[in-house]
Amino acid sequence: MAQWIWRYGDHEIYHSLLLHSRREEFGADYPAIWHTDAPEKTVSFFREFEAEKPCWMRLTPCGKGSLVVDGKRFPSGEKVDIPAGKHSVSARIVNVEGLPAAFVESDICPSNGEWTCGIRERGGCEKVGTSGWYTDPDVTPEVFPFRYEEIKPAGKEAVNGGILYDFGKETFARITVSGCPEDEEILLVYGESREEALDPENAVIRQRRKGKTGYELHARALRYLFVSGAEKTVRAEFEYLPLEKRGSFHSDDELMNRIWETSAYTFLLNSREFFLDGIKRDRWVWSGDAYQSYMVNAYLFFDKAIAERTMLALRGRDEMPEHINTILDYSLYWLISIADHYRLYGDREFLIRMLPRMRSLLKYVEKDTDENGFITGGEGAWIFIDWSEMDKEGPISAEQLLYIRALEAMAECEEAAGNDASFLREKAGTFLMKVNEFFWDAEKGAYIDSFVSGKRHVTRHANLFAVIFGLADEKKTASIVKNVILNDAVTQITTPYFKFFEMDALCRLGFMERVAERIKAYWGGMLALGATSIWEQFDPEKTGVERYAMYGSAYGCSLCHAWGAGPVYLMGRYYLGVRPVKPGYEEYTVEPCTEGLGNIEGSVPTPKGDIRIKVCGNSASVFAPFEGGILVWKGKKKAIKAGEWTQISE
Amino acid sequence: MAQWIWRYGDHEIYHSLLLHSRREEFGADYPAIWHTDAPEKTVSFFREFEAEKPCWMRLTPCGKGSLVVDGKRFPSGEKVDIPAGKHSVSARIVNVEGLPAAFVESDICPSNGEWTCGIRERGGCEKVGTSGWYTDPDVTPEVFPFRYEEIKPAGKEAVNGGILYDFGKETFARITVSGCPEDEEILLVYGESREEALDPENAVIRQRRKGKTGYELHARALRYLFVSGAEKTVRAEFEYLPLEKRGSFHSDDELMNRIWETSAYTFLLNSREFFLDGIKRDRWVWSGDAYQSYMVNAYLFFDKAIAERTMLALRGRDEMPEHINTILDYSLYWLISIADHYRLYGDREFLIRMLPRMRSLLKYVEKDTDENGFITGGEGAWIFIDWSEMDKEGPISAEQLLYIRALEAMAECEEAAGNDASFLREKAGTFLMKVNEFFWDAEKGAYIDSFVSGKRHVTRHANLFAVIFGLADEKKTASIVKNVILNDAVTQITTPYFKFFEMDALCRLGFMERVAERIKAYWGGMLALGATSIWEQFDPEKTGVERYAMYGSAYGCSLCHAWGAGPVYLMGRYYLGVRPVKPGYEEYTVEPCTEGLGNIEGSVPTPKGDIRIKVCGNSASVFAPFEGGILVWKGKKKAIKAGEWTQISE
Repeated sequence: MAQWIWRYGDHEIYHSLLLHSRREEFGADYPAIWHTDAPEKTVSFFREFEAEKPCWMRLTPCGKGSLVVDGKRFPSGEKVDIPAGKHSVSARIVNVEGLPAAFVESDICPSNGEWTCGIRERGGCEKVGTSGWYTDPDVTPEVFPFRYEEIKPAGKEAVNGGILYDFGKETFARITVSGCPEDEEILLVYGESREEALDPENAVIRQRRKGKTGYELHARALRYLFVSGAEKTVRAEFEYLPLEKRGSFHSDDELMNRIWETSAYTFLLNSREFFLDGIKRDRWVWSGDAYQSYMVNAYLFFDKAIAERTMLALRGRDEMPEHINTILDYSLYWLISIADHYRLYGDREFLIRMLPRMRSLLKYVEKDTDENGFITGGEGAWIFIDWSEMDKEGPISAEQLLYIRALEAMAECEEAAGNDASFLREKAGTFLMKVNEFFWDAEKGAYIDSFVSGKRHVTRHANLFAVIFGLADEKKTASIVKNVILNDAVTQITTPYFKFFEMDALCRLGFMERVAERIKAYWGGMLALGATSIWEQFDPEKTGVERYAMYGSAYGCSLCHAWGAGPVYLMGRYYLGVRPVKPGYEEYTVEPCTEGLGNIEGSVPTPKGDIRIKVCGNSASVFAPFEGGILVWKGKKKAIKAGEWTQISE
Repeated sequence: MAQWIWRYGDHEIYHSLLLHSRREEFGADYPAIWHTDAPEKTVSFFREFEAEKPCWMRLTPCGKGSLVVDGKRFPSGEKVDIPAGKHSVSARIVNVEGLPAAFVESDICPSNGEWTCGIRERGGCEKVGTSGWYTDPDVTPEVFPFRYEEIKPAGKEAVNGGILYDFGKETFARITVSGCPEDEEILLVYGESREEALDPENAVIRQRRKGKTGYELHARALRYLFVSGAEKTVRAEFEYLPLEKRGSFHSDDELMNRIWETSAYTFLLNSREFFLDGIKRDRWVWSGDAYQSYMVNAYLFFDKAIAERTMLALRGRDEMPEHINTILDYSLYWLISIADHYRLYGDREFLIRMLPRMRSLLKYVEKDTDENGFITGGEGAWIFIDWSEMDKEGPISAEQLLYIRALEAMAECEEAAGNDASFLREKAGTFLMKVNEFFWDAEKGAYIDSFVSGKRHVTRHANLFAVIFGLADEKKTASIVKNVILNDAVTQITTPYFKFFEMDALCRLGFMERVAERIKAYWGGMLALGATSIWEQFDPEKTGVERYAMYGSAYGCSLCHAWGAGPVYLMGRYYLGVRPVKPGYEEYTVEPCTEGLGNIEGSVPTPKGDIRIKVCGNSASVFAPFEGGILVWKGKKKAIKAGEWTQISE
């Protein structure tokens, strides 16, 4: 069957461009703050084949172009008869406005992943991009295949001269209003909270329309919707990407179960063309947020395609005019994520495709260093790390530690591709020694943010990275635990973004009960306030509508933010305890934990099928459809047999 | 008055993309064979100003975006009131499909050339692109401002079951057909020749339409138009860019006058968004063709803007995935043309804008060399030079000589910008010695094409370059004249493209009478056949419809090709004899010649006004509105006075 084909990566670049042009705020369009790539505009697609008998082909272009068979040009749309024999076919497509793509119907050689492409008229040898989604010549890959499902409001009330609809929970919906008087200006206010929907002045998303009897509005985030004037017919359709929830989690702790479910729902809403940060405000793709989404995805959808789409969109074209999202750390996460992705899915082809992009990105990172060789990001680069007080004078420790992990990731990928990476390994080792020399404060027993400022300020971030990435030796780790992680005098983390890393570090350090407690307090705190999805930020000290404020705006805080879905990852990786040891789960470990939760059960997706885990009392059981795993429970180990339950009882 | 503003160069990249997507052939779309750039998709525009009293602004985006005044965001289209004081304003625009541009109306700070821009949200410091053309908020710079003028056929006849219209001469027109029966398929065949319009099978441009009562067809080249079926209402509008014909030429030789006029008309038809190669077939922008167009333009329109648009379109974005038009020589012409352009117009700002693009292009050229350091173009590069038998094994001499001129051009530009270029000067000198060592054949007294093949084949091309670029010393020049230029055993040049260079060389060598004769024979030969514009190729040996064949197709030869306009340049530069000595005509020479033509008169445009020249009998007169010129006539010299006639009589 024929599929639409395009230059690999361009589908992502195009949809990323569309996505990043959609932000709106207080009625104004708000283009992305970073450089946005366009797909290649003219692309040739190639195929050689041998036909045993006469055959035919027909080109449908996304754009304009023609089919060239053995050097002869045919208009698109024309059925071309081809005699038996060896043939060389190409389709050159230009698309000024959108994504150049080709759809070739044929009884012998339809367009599919076997075709190659290139920017030149001849000789392209890159494999095309394609997807099982796009098999209809009438629907081009410029149309992202979202699904729609009508949803009904859970309630409505007449208020403030209009009707307020409550859809019962956070959602993302296309709204159609009909039965409007033509001369009436209709105001729609979208609210993630009731307060927002009733505050047209300050609500982030609002729209005024006039002059027609009905309006179809593109999909936006909401739980509440205010429609001004007398009641009209309002229809809402949930817009989503159907992804199979392969991971699951259940424990004796009902709050934790609700946290897991709410996290999973939050994550579903944010999993669309790419992994978004949040569905209301910017709906952009941020590499730091995506880095955590890859981790959550590994324990929920295990959807390789969305992860790769996100990576391709973030990286864009090979030339880099600035850091990914303009942020140095976000470039580094991108590198790290490729190695992590390989470990999860074991896809060497994707890895090899990414290698040149990794090398040039690393080169871009390394072009800006200070006199000691520490990376600085260069002029205009944003040194983000987190929304937190941090001493950012000169090179900062958190970036250097990410850089070391990025060097290791680069080495892992080069090695997986069969290349020598000893230079990278050595560089990472030497660099770590230098980081310890400049940034480790023996007196404070912790990494300081900056050595340039002289303030010797300690924040949690770099110290967490040192633990998570295994860059701190045993002595330093113990010191970090005592002086930073368990030291309440060090400023607490307030974003679920870095809470995610903090929880990860605590799990790695074995503080499982503390993790369960903190998750229940922090995530549970949001649920207690009626959250139906996890927020961008939560400060238990704040009250009322104050909780929704962020970035200087009354409802600036996103109430459905992907980085809040961390518990899905933490439960899967540390409670169900499943992790790959060799790429693609060729070898893996299942080391469950129940601390603070009682009995647990659930499943973790892998490329070879789902692993099911049950821990009941003193007995832990695993069912996996494939070999290669080791069950670890209460100090005992057992090889996991394929297709049957493997159990260890204390 | 407000003007549309865009990222400098993007207007050209966008219109180049549109242009290069428009080729059609035998009913099929035919995208350009080279890489096509897209403009930057998200751009910010900036302005700081101080208002003495309250003022206002309103943004109209080409794309989507908003106006940010002192950090506060306002929707596009909204009139924003601004208090007195200092203000910082920006407009960030995204345009997924087209060219991001901004139009800001304001009583104090409208969008114009004073604004800056950048790809980032903040800190752009590049000056924007703008044009006096685009001052209407309702018409974006995505619409190129062609003019339209109704033209009437000079004749029509019923033939082959339809009507054949003859517009009397070559033109470029938008055709509207009305009064069609809905169920009748209408066939339109465009012909540069009568034969082509009556040969629907082989005509390059043909179109079939059905299902409506009228059709409006985009503008295409034609002299003849065949419309099938019973007579309908056919309306034709000439589509053109109004350019002032500042140059003029008249002599006692009526044939030469007609040649000049026909060349000028040919050139007008090809001067549109950019300098095209020809108006019928590909209508693409080719750097080699453009190189000659810049020279013709210097003696006809002196339109700096179209030259710069062409240079920007050819160069595209800074990153080069391949040579300009995929051709090594065409990359080199681009470099040379910037230096020539500076000499003509003296615009240092444009020069400085081009310098980074020149440097990176030179770097791209130099990345592919053989073991002797000769440039080779690299894998997949097209070594064109001319449609001529040439020994292209290994590096070829014509490319090396172009490269030396390109190095000198680069040096001229660096020096004009105030930079040291001694390295480039030295490199050019050393390289020339090496070229002489490898490519100069002492026995043949000429440059050979290739030293690798061992064939020691001589063609005219490299030898012409050596003369034109002044790279051959006196002895070598004499040898080239004798052994190549005046040697009929060396294959004759058949394209007006290289005829142009050949005539240029002959003029430089002083063979003026021979030039006049050849022009009259070759160009005059086309006129004798009824040509109303100059052809892409002309072989006097061919007869009938055979003359229109090229590239393996019956009407493949373009009958209106810019490179045929050479006589405009030759008459202006060598007969009227005007040329700049210092950039922007700060100093110049007028050295007229009448050999073979009798009395002549005409005018040559310069940045400071037109220079008028009259040669009558033994007396030569010049009128220039500015100083700095020297009149040279029959061995005498005289400084030209501004605003009066300066005369030398023998």
